[in-house]
Amino acid sequence: MEEYLARIGPADEAAMRAATERQLALTKPAGSLGVLEDLSVRVAGMVGSCPPAVPAPAVVTVFAADHGVHAQGVSPWPQEVTAAMLANFAAGGAAVNAFAANNRVDVRVVDVGVATDVDQLDIVHAKVRAGTRDLSTERALTEDEAKTAIAVGFDLADSLVKDGYRCLLTGDMGIANTTASAALIATFTGSTAEVVTGRGTGIDDATLAHKTAVIKSALALHDVPASDPLRALQAYGGLEHAALAGYILGGAANKVPVILDGVIAGAAALVAQAFHPKVIDYCVAGHRSAEPGHAVALKTLGLQPLVDLDLRLGEGTGAVLAYPIVTCAVRALGEMATFESAGISS
Amino acid sequence: MEEYLARIGPADEAAMRAATERQLALTKPAGSLGVLEDLSVRVAGMVGSCPPAVPAPAVVTVFAADHGVHAQGVSPWPQEVTAAMLANFAAGGAAVNAFAANNRVDVRVVDVGVATDVDQLDIVHAKVRAGTRDLSTERALTEDEAKTAIAVGFDLADSLVKDGYRCLLTGDMGIANTTASAALIATFTGSTAEVVTGRGTGIDDATLAHKTAVIKSALALHDVPASDPLRALQAYGGLEHAALAGYILGGAANKVPVILDGVIAGAAALVAQAFHPKVIDYCVAGHRSAEPGHAVALKTLGLQPLVDLDLRLGEGTGAVLAYPIVTCAVRALGEMATFESAGISS
Repeated sequence: MEEYLARIGPADEAAMRAATERQLALTKPAGSLGVLEDLSVRVAGMVGSCPPAVPAPAVVTVFAADHGVHAQGVSPWPQEVTAAMLANFAAGGAAVNAFAANNRVDVRVVDVGVATDVDQLDIVHAKVRAGTRDLSTERALTEDEAKTAIAVGFDLADSLVKDGYRCLLTGDMGIANTTASAALIATFTGSTAEVVTGRGTGIDDATLAHKTAVIKSALALHDVPASDPLRALQAYGGLEHAALAGYILGGAANKVPVILDGVIAGAAALVAQAFHPKVIDYCVAGHRSAEPGHAVALKTLGLQPLVDLDLRLGEGTGAVLAYPIVTCAVRALGEMATFESAGISS
Repeated sequence: MEEYLARIGPADEAAMRAATERQLALTKPAGSLGVLEDLSVRVAGMVGSCPPAVPAPAVVTVFAADHGVHAQGVSPWPQEVTAAMLANFAAGGAAVNAFAANNRVDVRVVDVGVATDVDQLDIVHAKVRAGTRDLSTERALTEDEAKTAIAVGFDLADSLVKDGYRCLLTGDMGIANTTASAALIATFTGSTAEVVTGRGTGIDDATLAHKTAVIKSALALHDVPASDPLRALQAYGGLEHAALAGYILGGAANKVPVILDGVIAGAAALVAQAFHPKVIDYCVAGHRSAEPGHAVALKTLGLQPLVDLDLRLGEGTGAVLAYPIVTCAVRALGEMATFESAGISS
């Protein structure tokens, strides 16, 4: 971990100042591109140049894993759906595939801890273990398992950037993963289980009450302080959260923008932030999920979501939807005429 | 006008029903794509098939014109900026050019009433007159002028669809056009000048108070009922609002989705709605502008904006930003596997 964290530094202040000044010279009323102006300044800071190159090509990495807490009946879907959806991703039939094809984003799928055997699928195989242990009764992961999963994400980010990708998007798949997310978000934001627990894929009132009680009791059982991200991952998992935290840290270490998807990514980003606060300089909140814990996570992360359309699917769909907004912001900064070059008196 | 209006009918109910059913069969929890599910159903209704083809190629048409009310000091920008920005559009240096290149949208620029001579620019020349008359002292347009401008927009929509475009985006340029927009929005929503008047490109408090007073007095002078869209266009203009209303009606007549930009498009869509209520079946609200009258207009139009990022530039930037969201929604409906085809038990 120390080696990873040593590679992360703050965004480039000089590039951000240059971008802020350049925004004022572009042929538009000052501030009229709203959130996109600040976004372009942030990307300049991430990559350390002004104007920054368009962050392309982009890749969305879908980290998939299962959760031992599924045995507690927190989701109506059988655990096998995780593996079935991996086959669907590999065949190009999922929502993230349609969105990614539309927005010129490549898709990678990583088994970091699926309970079912998916060896036959043409995906990245990096299974740390076949699902976490049940967080409601014991630690979900050992320290070694958590660290190994973090390394899967970090090393993949390194390798993707080496392959030429200049924008990393987060994706996730794992039945019951909103339960682990809620526990992580409660840990790092100081919120109660009631505030951060949601309906996930769409559970009824009775299941929601049960899920909330399971999370509440797990928070009391493990009692992890917000200052200890590694122990939080051990307590609650999931393997995809650990890998995502590593992937986000890896994006920051490589100075490329990381577009976060929804609540799973938000929980993982809180873990990454606890490891190194500057990692958030490199993060863009793709969207706000309908899952209540996500807004709580975004507040602590200090990020404003770009898309807010009641999505609650995961897979990276919200991040992929947001990607053209990021590239539009960067292209406006780089390609628009200035008042001077257009011969317009400002 | 009657000939135009006779070509407009409601969205196709059967296609919408089929799309609603298909959404339930796709490999995702029901409702998990949020607003995009309803959006895909609406597009199916517009084009009359399920699944609908991806609405491409797309074109954003920037209708440009000037406003006689500029003489009242409602904007800090000189009127010549309209023409200068047209040169900027033609040279590819404006925000809408950067966004459109990023999102694979073509750009058309139409002079429907610019005060300055722009004959030398490589744009569509359809000038009805060199700016409107001052709406604060007289009718901005004659009936013939208003009808001619409507025809410019309607006939262009026809011709763009004939050329193969399957999605029409609205754009606009015209110094002082938020003043005419506010008057139109007040007329069709029953709101007061205070509620619908905003800072446009960014005016100070004194100018805002003056602008509001100008609009208030113009509303009293012309006193147009919400049932008379042609007289509203005569009273307030602008020529771009009239052309946009025609373009929106033309999109509906051709059964292609029309993505509306901000407050200018919102005002024009209210005019179009007053001509034929079913035209809104074919409209998508690209974004919500920071200009206060826009939210008021969207409420009366019954449309929910896709993007809400404090943009207040116009030019079509908000519509172009929203275009990939529309195509993602349609591609998900058309390209995702069903639970049955993916072999997943729902």
